[in-house]
Amino acid sequence: MTAYADRLHAAIRAKRTPALVGIDPRLDLLPADIVERNRTPERTAAEAAAGAFEEFSKRLIDAVAPLVPAVKPQAAFFEEYGPPGMAALGRVVAHARTAGLITILDAKRGDIGSTAEAYARGWLGGADPDHPWQADALTVNPYLGADTLEPFVKTATERGAGLYVLVRTSNPGAAAFQDVCEGATNVFERVADVVESLSSGDAAYGPVGAVVGATYPEELKLLRTRMPHVPLLMPGYGAQGGSALDVATAFDADGLGAVVNSSRGINFAFRRQPYADQFGEARWEQAAAAATRAMIADLATVVTVG
Amino acid sequence: MTAYADRLHAAIRAKRTPALVGIDPRLDLLPADIVERNRTPERTAAEAAAGAFEEFSKRLIDAVAPLVPAVKPQAAFFEEYGPPGMAALGRVVAHARTAGLITILDAKRGDIGSTAEAYARGWLGGADPDHPWQADALTVNPYLGADTLEPFVKTATERGAGLYVLVRTSNPGAAAFQDVCEGATNVFERVADVVESLSSGDAAYGPVGAVVGATYPEELKLLRTRMPHVPLLMPGYGAQGGSALDVATAFDADGLGAVVNSSRGINFAFRRQPYADQFGEARWEQAAAAATRAMIADLATVVTVG
Repeated sequence: MTAYADRLHAAIRAKRTPALVGIDPRLDLLPADIVERNRTPERTAAEAAAGAFEEFSKRLIDAVAPLVPAVKPQAAFFEEYGPPGMAALGRVVAHARTAGLITILDAKRGDIGSTAEAYARGWLGGADPDHPWQADALTVNPYLGADTLEPFVKTATERGAGLYVLVRTSNPGAAAFQDVCEGATNVFERVADVVESLSSGDAAYGPVGAVVGATYPEELKLLRTRMPHVPLLMPGYGAQGGSALDVATAFDADGLGAVVNSSRGINFAFRRQPYADQFGEARWEQAAAAATRAMIADLATVVTVG
Repeated sequence: MTAYADRLHAAIRAKRTPALVGIDPRLDLLPADIVERNRTPERTAAEAAAGAFEEFSKRLIDAVAPLVPAVKPQAAFFEEYGPPGMAALGRVVAHARTAGLITILDAKRGDIGSTAEAYARGWLGGADPDHPWQADALTVNPYLGADTLEPFVKTATERGAGLYVLVRTSNPGAAAFQDVCEGATNVFERVADVVESLSSGDAAYGPVGAVVGATYPEELKLLRTRMPHVPLLMPGYGAQGGSALDVATAFDADGLGAVVNSSRGINFAFRRQPYADQFGEARWEQAAAAATRAMIADLATVVTVG
């Protein structure tokens, strides 16, 4: 069984980019024809929305699969539409895996003891997709304590799956609790130290990664040094304001050790310039692919996967 | 539209107890006949488990509905079995609401901006159950920052729904990040201050509650004083070691303002004494009801709902 970091890095080497595409369907931003086609008389409103999300997400995956190593479906947008939304999410993850993509489920789960075990067993597919949700990796919230991460780590290690623990998030208010500092060490540094201890070992990178917002480049630089064995996931690039320069310090000499996520900027590229004029809504998949190529080119100015 | 705290307190007054029953199905602890009956040739393993969870949860709800004001399904156990598990969870929540119970969905969600909005719109039913998951209230994780709670509060307020923000959890390692202290105020006190500010207003209690573990009675006492307008949810009673005396400080003079949760001790009462001898597996529902009555009597030694 191949470890998560090895599978992730093989995918990054194959595509020669650390670009990660978030799958964030939203009913009010989807191409209108997809929404219309899925609104049929026999479907409830939730079933129609879930159907539209599934069609959009699978076509988006097909559009970017030749370009990037990984995708990150956001569970919340599917959960909003209840059980039909969750069923669609399951099929979207399966589609991404079949397309050969590393699939990071962004669900930010976290709980104690046997409850954490249940989340881990359900969501993490890892090297073996024969589990309900099949994700290669899962985002995890550390607020409940270091002990609550252990059941996730155990299952991830067993299955060749990965975790990304929230360390420093990309939102404007991230500092409120994450930056509370006792002695010389604040909360996000304490979380970082736990994550590093869970990933340090014989391998260059362990199974436990960290979410560090691209919107906080100073913190990113310090956290990269503090967590040398930890794969990073950086949200906040693009629509949230993070640039290639902001994430440049995240990568090792081989251009590995980190992925950079863009969601809105790619999913709905057809709604913004220059893609709106160039492709329009009818060719939204080409717009998404073009925006992905632009992101890849932008990241290539600061990192070369060798 | 009636506010969450008013609906919760009406239910507590009607049943004259703050006892809350957690719905925590686990395949290896369920009565064997339920597991067997739901394992049919045409079902996948996940569908069979989800079917067993649905049957067990609905029968447990029916057994305790005459006794308690509220139930708390744990999302993780249903999520473990993928889309069929989520479909079962949806039907379990609907069943609890039809039984007249306040339904607190324990899913510990948390994310930023529009993602938090999606979780809130999906999970919170509030006074109007015509939303996908129909929950009266949802547990929420604050690690991402105070700004990330706002979308949840907005939807909860609009719908007469409630939130329970994790403040001090019941697990042994809760202190690792929650107790980090800068100046005179640690992380969980900062979260508590945000929660109090979100709930303080004209009403005695606001829509934003707090999770405070029954296993930390000293912290509970301080937090009750710090959050006078905040409905409390206390896990950790029973199987995790919390006693009635440990939660005594949580209630106001009318016995309101808090609910005390027991999950394992009631769900699987038939597996422990005196209920194993008295009822056995065949009469597991009576065992659950008897354990609930014992919890209610125990809590009545420290709080009288007037």
